[in-house]
Amino acid sequence: MCSPNQGQRADARKGVKAHCFFIMVCEPVSNGLILYKKYGAEKKEMSKYALGIDYGTLSGRALLVNAETGDEAAASVFDYPHAVMDETLPDGTKLGFDWALQHPQDYIDVLAHTVPDVLQKSGAAAEEIVGIGVDFTACTVLPVTEDGTPLCFLKQYSSDPNAYVKLWKHHAAQDKATALNAIAEKRGEQWIKRYGGKISSEWLFPKVWQVLDESPEVYADMAYFLEAADWVVWQLCGVQTRNSCTAGYKAMWHKREGYPSEEFFAALDPRMKGILNGKLNCAVSPLGAKAGEVTEAMAKITGLKAGTPVAVGNVDAHVCVPAVKIDGPGKMLAIMGTSTCHMLLGTDEKAVPGICGCVEDGIMPGFFGYEAGQSCVGDHFAWFVENCLPGGYEKEAKSSGKDIHVYLQEKMACLKPGESGLVALDWWNGNRSVLVDVDLTGLLIGLTLQTRPEEIYRALVEATAFGTRKIIENFEKNGVPVEEFYAAGGIPDKGPIVMQIYADIIKKPIRISGSAQGPALGAAIFGAVAGGAYPDVMAAARTMGKLKDVVFTPNMENAAVYDKLYREYEILHDYFGLGLNDVMKRLKEIKKG
Amino acid sequence: MCSPNQGQRADARKGVKAHCFFIMVCEPVSNGLILYKKYGAEKKEMSKYALGIDYGTLSGRALLVNAETGDEAAASVFDYPHAVMDETLPDGTKLGFDWALQHPQDYIDVLAHTVPDVLQKSGAAAEEIVGIGVDFTACTVLPVTEDGTPLCFLKQYSSDPNAYVKLWKHHAAQDKATALNAIAEKRGEQWIKRYGGKISSEWLFPKVWQVLDESPEVYADMAYFLEAADWVVWQLCGVQTRNSCTAGYKAMWHKREGYPSEEFFAALDPRMKGILNGKLNCAVSPLGAKAGEVTEAMAKITGLKAGTPVAVGNVDAHVCVPAVKIDGPGKMLAIMGTSTCHMLLGTDEKAVPGICGCVEDGIMPGFFGYEAGQSCVGDHFAWFVENCLPGGYEKEAKSSGKDIHVYLQEKMACLKPGESGLVALDWWNGNRSVLVDVDLTGLLIGLTLQTRPEEIYRALVEATAFGTRKIIENFEKNGVPVEEFYAAGGIPDKGPIVMQIYADIIKKPIRISGSAQGPALGAAIFGAVAGGAYPDVMAAARTMGKLKDVVFTPNMENAAVYDKLYREYEILHDYFGLGLNDVMKRLKEIKKG
Repeated sequence: MCSPNQGQRADARKGVKAHCFFIMVCEPVSNGLILYKKYGAEKKEMSKYALGIDYGTLSGRALLVNAETGDEAAASVFDYPHAVMDETLPDGTKLGFDWALQHPQDYIDVLAHTVPDVLQKSGAAAEEIVGIGVDFTACTVLPVTEDGTPLCFLKQYSSDPNAYVKLWKHHAAQDKATALNAIAEKRGEQWIKRYGGKISSEWLFPKVWQVLDESPEVYADMAYFLEAADWVVWQLCGVQTRNSCTAGYKAMWHKREGYPSEEFFAALDPRMKGILNGKLNCAVSPLGAKAGEVTEAMAKITGLKAGTPVAVGNVDAHVCVPAVKIDGPGKMLAIMGTSTCHMLLGTDEKAVPGICGCVEDGIMPGFFGYEAGQSCVGDHFAWFVENCLPGGYEKEAKSSGKDIHVYLQEKMACLKPGESGLVALDWWNGNRSVLVDVDLTGLLIGLTLQTRPEEIYRALVEATAFGTRKIIENFEKNGVPVEEFYAAGGIPDKGPIVMQIYADIIKKPIRISGSAQGPALGAAIFGAVAGGAYPDVMAAARTMGKLKDVVFTPNMENAAVYDKLYREYEILHDYFGLGLNDVMKRLKEIKKG
Repeated sequence: MCSPNQGQRADARKGVKAHCFFIMVCEPVSNGLILYKKYGAEKKEMSKYALGIDYGTLSGRALLVNAETGDEAAASVFDYPHAVMDETLPDGTKLGFDWALQHPQDYIDVLAHTVPDVLQKSGAAAEEIVGIGVDFTACTVLPVTEDGTPLCFLKQYSSDPNAYVKLWKHHAAQDKATALNAIAEKRGEQWIKRYGGKISSEWLFPKVWQVLDESPEVYADMAYFLEAADWVVWQLCGVQTRNSCTAGYKAMWHKREGYPSEEFFAALDPRMKGILNGKLNCAVSPLGAKAGEVTEAMAKITGLKAGTPVAVGNVDAHVCVPAVKIDGPGKMLAIMGTSTCHMLLGTDEKAVPGICGCVEDGIMPGFFGYEAGQSCVGDHFAWFVENCLPGGYEKEAKSSGKDIHVYLQEKMACLKPGESGLVALDWWNGNRSVLVDVDLTGLLIGLTLQTRPEEIYRALVEATAFGTRKIIENFEKNGVPVEEFYAAGGIPDKGPIVMQIYADIIKKPIRISGSAQGPALGAAIFGAVAGGAYPDVMAAARTMGKLKDVVFTPNMENAAVYDKLYREYEILHDYFGLGLNDVMKRLKEIKKG
């Protein structure tokens, strides 16, 4: 792992002025990690780049980053031609309720389009790339043959929905998750405590169980069932790996205990016996490790140099942690997009109820990585704009040349906390943390004939912030401190008013990611580490990570009002979320007919 | 009261073809009422007309009706020049929060404009009018001098808001209503049970108490404080009367017990002692009775014939009952406009909690008239259109040339009951019955990212129907049967889809008023009775009342789903409405800051 004297090449073609640079020297430290001391030195002529490839829900993005400075040299985005398949397969085969699939060809197409593009845009040479990192949505999983061919590429399975990639937001395995949780509880399985006491239908085992149940032939014919993150890495370097992040958070793997027992899986379904030594049979690699090197075949497709190091796969949210310079415990990162993921490092393994997971080395080596989440944040605001925005507002925003969210946020900024008399429960897409219940739905209370659209919009924003406060307090109550708050993603980047409301509600200062492309930057950081440019992720984070200058500081007068509103949120949260009134679930039952 | 051989004149000028008509012959029947037997006969040349004058919130309307057939000969509307004054008086004097005033001159202007207009349009001669009825919004009240001059007409009071007409929706006397209810409860006043246990801030005594408290000089100088309905009748015929409807429903008067005791009023405020023999000193007249005859002065202004009989005043909702042919108990009429009033006749006096009132002879002589209400119905749908309607929907409705509500109702008609997964509490404007609580607010539950605007719209419609069902069940539970359901007003007239939803939810067939001008037709019916064209209101109702041919019959498959949704509505209704979680009130407190 130790590679001193990294980063000594600069990009001569770009005529970059020589500037102070660091030569790093190996030195073992007490926690068993290798850290580097830094000595100032003259930068040499050639820069080294790191390449981050970020697979989102609708597109993939390549980001070429200067590994010495974190400066972003070029970016390129490619929309998945098949996007999210939630109604039909390409051949017209109808999908059921709550399905969400993807086509693996799209992922290869991302590489073929974006990598040559960033090389071309930046003028960088392929050999200047020190390492490549890949991050992905998760749990996004697919069945493949022994050589890695997706089963949906086989003619006999091209019309079988279970042969395709099940996207993270595929929710059609809820019955499997429910059964799995019940059996785990009955058997007194201890590992489930690491996941807040409940497994999500989004995760690997409910999804693979659905394949077995609905398409036993696909299950039989697949050699492996793996994360798309690991599959893309396999395609890049020809080596199958499993990353500790998705294995830990999405497949119930533990660094010391491994996966749950074969008996447990046999208890789910006798046919599932042997799954660990079969469909999941691959060692789990730590984050930041090198998975392999770019193959000749992939070099041809992408313009990369064969032999370039490739990091093991990672998850889009998790890679953001070093991208905002987080290098230790107590600092929560919220990645706020359509949904929000909360990342937090801790020094001990605590059983925190209602979180998504606690995985040793799951975010950064040497720490317990805690994850929690909110299922509906940007989606919440987008829903409002799509379904509740009066034509007059739309026109006014257009005529003032403002993005509709900017317009609405400016309008809601004129309101004082509590002025609308509204409170919402932010469960339009269920509740991920701390209730872990996809069957919960949204609520809006306090409506009057005077209620205006911007008041509803603000109530939705506030509700997501109350949800975040609930998550923070839950961590703190269970012995995992949260001292600082960081935010990354489109919402913090473009929504200062939203972030001020968050600061007032959570009563902590908020720092904002300095990159608009946090996951891709994070992936590049892991690529740089895999390529040996840094001794470890913490060191890379401190140099390549970025924060904006702005800090959102709580207004304590507003915070006092929000304390009152939060108490109301909590009462409603518990009443509707803890089974005192299961109306939301009964309405869903009635809806099913 | 008995006037056989009525209605034998036809309108010769209009060349109406002679047709079968009825000669009515007196015959006493068992229930003590005088009914008429009808015998076919040839219609004579001259028709008799009845004139109904309906005073709404923003305009007054005259309707000339053929008293023999109920056919509407001509109508005329006049918008009040001062409309509703809720911000300033005509001279710029600012009004406080929740004020709503009117200018009495507007009421006279209605007569001066609309009566000549209907005579002219119909070609009817003034002497052909058998009688005149007046209905009004209520409780709409004003202070006047001994000769009936409104105090606001006096120069010294033209800038005093308390000298003007307090419109029904003037809510600035809420503190007085609250205090009145507390004192009544403390004193164990029994009469309050007839009003569901609570007096509304909209009614007479809170309003007159506000005058006393804020403008003691207006209170001292007024000879009388009376309903605008009675004031207009006074202006028409020169005789002060008080109608049993407003006296009973809005001024706590009882046929046998009279008003509450002087001691009670003295307990409210010592200065209010003597109010009954002072400001309210006028006998209460039964509905359908003749108040007097058109004066020479008013004949000049209106073109009416001096001496034409004028009925005692009445309330816009209450006069609609005979206008839809209701002639006895068990038949509930809902007048559905911005809000909904429910009218029901019963044979006994029952203490029904949470209703607006039970008044003997308050709707039709011989019965106990029950009234209940919902504060937010058409207003609910209008709020949605104003605040939640996406621009795309607005455009689509426009390009298809459809009224926006017709468009939305067509869209929501494509949904099945329960399909949206939504339930709302229809309390955007508080709850009038059966909770009688203006501080309750609206709730919407079951929202998801898939929720569409038409689903929300439908949920609001359903919520108002659930509210109606609650009112019906409350009557039934307390011994006042509801067997049939009638609806009048703009919503039933134009919203067949809304009415089908109502039928499915209340599980009763719904009949619809045959007149788009139910109150004016109802006023004309009372005018015809006062003029002697019919022996009583029931007989006039059967002949002059009108129903559409259509009947909305419950679809029992839908009703079964709605039974389930209604159970959820009830749980939420009780949880938020009965004090288990007073979040709505606390949010209002926070809002006040």
